[in-house]
Amino acid sequence: MKKISYLGPRGTFTEEALFSFYKNAKEIKSEPLGTIVDVIKSIDRGDADEGLIPIENSLEGSVNITQDILTFESEAKIIREITIPIRHNLIGKKYVDLKKIKKVISHPHATAQCRSFLNNKLHGVEVIAANSTAEAVKKILDLNDDTAAIGTKIAAELYGLSIIEKDIEDSRDNKTRFIFVGNYIPQKSGQDKTSIVCFLKKDKPGSLYKILKEFADRNINLTKIESRPARKNIGDYVFMIDIEGHLHDKKVFEGIESLRRNVYMIKMLGSYPIWKES
Amino acid sequence: MKKISYLGPRGTFTEEALFSFYKNAKEIKSEPLGTIVDVIKSIDRGDADEGLIPIENSLEGSVNITQDILTFESEAKIIREITIPIRHNLIGKKYVDLKKIKKVISHPHATAQCRSFLNNKLHGVEVIAANSTAEAVKKILDLNDDTAAIGTKIAAELYGLSIIEKDIEDSRDNKTRFIFVGNYIPQKSGQDKTSIVCFLKKDKPGSLYKILKEFADRNINLTKIESRPARKNIGDYVFMIDIEGHLHDKKVFEGIESLRRNVYMIKMLGSYPIWKES
Repeated sequence: MKKISYLGPRGTFTEEALFSFYKNAKEIKSEPLGTIVDVIKSIDRGDADEGLIPIENSLEGSVNITQDILTFESEAKIIREITIPIRHNLIGKKYVDLKKIKKVISHPHATAQCRSFLNNKLHGVEVIAANSTAEAVKKILDLNDDTAAIGTKIAAELYGLSIIEKDIEDSRDNKTRFIFVGNYIPQKSGQDKTSIVCFLKKDKPGSLYKILKEFADRNINLTKIESRPARKNIGDYVFMIDIEGHLHDKKVFEGIESLRRNVYMIKMLGSYPIWKES
Repeated sequence: MKKISYLGPRGTFTEEALFSFYKNAKEIKSEPLGTIVDVIKSIDRGDADEGLIPIENSLEGSVNITQDILTFESEAKIIREITIPIRHNLIGKKYVDLKKIKKVISHPHATAQCRSFLNNKLHGVEVIAANSTAEAVKKILDLNDDTAAIGTKIAAELYGLSIIEKDIEDSRDNKTRFIFVGNYIPQKSGQDKTSIVCFLKKDKPGSLYKILKEFADRNINLTKIESRPARKNIGDYVFMIDIEGHLHDKKVFEGIESLRRNVYMIKMLGSYPIWKES
């Protein structure tokens, strides 16, 4: 049975992503771990076959720790991506009228993402912080008042609670992209992308330009680019680049090989199927 | 007297950045506001002369909301940047031995950034979430036990509390870049950078390459680049680019003018002095 580690605790969006991919929970043995580093290291260590972690949220931005650990401290590869919409729910022990709710608990990101709902429908409510949306949902189990939590549908199910109002997020465009990591490069699917990190020895005018020329000359499309400061002694600047195509496509392979001559180092983060909404 | 709005509440890192720039608090009239949008809109509305908000943390990544509001929903310009090191402090009502501390309160980002300290020096302690480090520090005022908070030096001063241990962060490289926004383009200082957003009509192979060619041909250095999905109907992709030089430098001006012919639209986010550690 496939062993899959993922960023815990139980009942968070990472778990929602896990079971939106593995629809039959009995097919896999899943284990929530405490940190992103723990998940990535479970692959390096051979403790799990796949690891699932967030890499990018459309509102909050890149999860730098995921990119940095994959770049600087691990040999784990991205084997698959999955993007899920972030839908927040107002959760209570049972259904209550909104007027009765005086306190709402959640992670500060979640409360920030439901600001309009809180202002319009729960005006003046006290907002209490939690370390995760799952922790928030779990907390109301112990309370005897009508405190509500903002959290996932699966957390409400996990703790046998009621959804008082669903889809309370301000933005319908709020999405998180997660990656599965493993220790291999998957075979071509026909619709793939390749994630690489380019280390540049000096941030000279035109250095990024030379990198992109290798791809432009070969008609390879870029889907993402992000500059990041390099860590000490490993070049001065790094660029995280996603390109369309699989490493085993001739033009992608050749583009990357040419690139190697122009940069200090390239690290391959993975070559994997592009996520498509089903 | 200059009116400056900033991301509140009082006692956070934004306030620390404010007073590390304006060393004499009596020179300015400062007002903490609830959200980044409120600060930016205080400039558009003419309620403040300058606004101060975070734009990027070296560990947590870009503050997308800041970039997005400046790009899509405001005419405020970046007039100045400031980068401060993020130093976390363990704060209590009075000095107590670490062994006596059973609970620690802070924002989830702060507790994540002090994980080693918590594991090694406060093993097994209960970690309680707060909506900001300032809220965490304020909360311990009301408690009668030895609960500690993780927060800023200025929050400890603000509430008359003691710093039990300073610099408890895992990474000495943790920094946040803040920007001051206003409604003008400052004059050249001689060491400037210019932040622009390029809107591309379609994510075609080589389109970014053409943008960078304009800068490479003119020997203009790029210091940051980040791709972001565009919002509906305003092009399909945007690139946030920082280049060295001031808009009023002939080669920068000409580079941007040439660029305008190759892209759907350019939005100028500002042209301002490069931050230097003093």
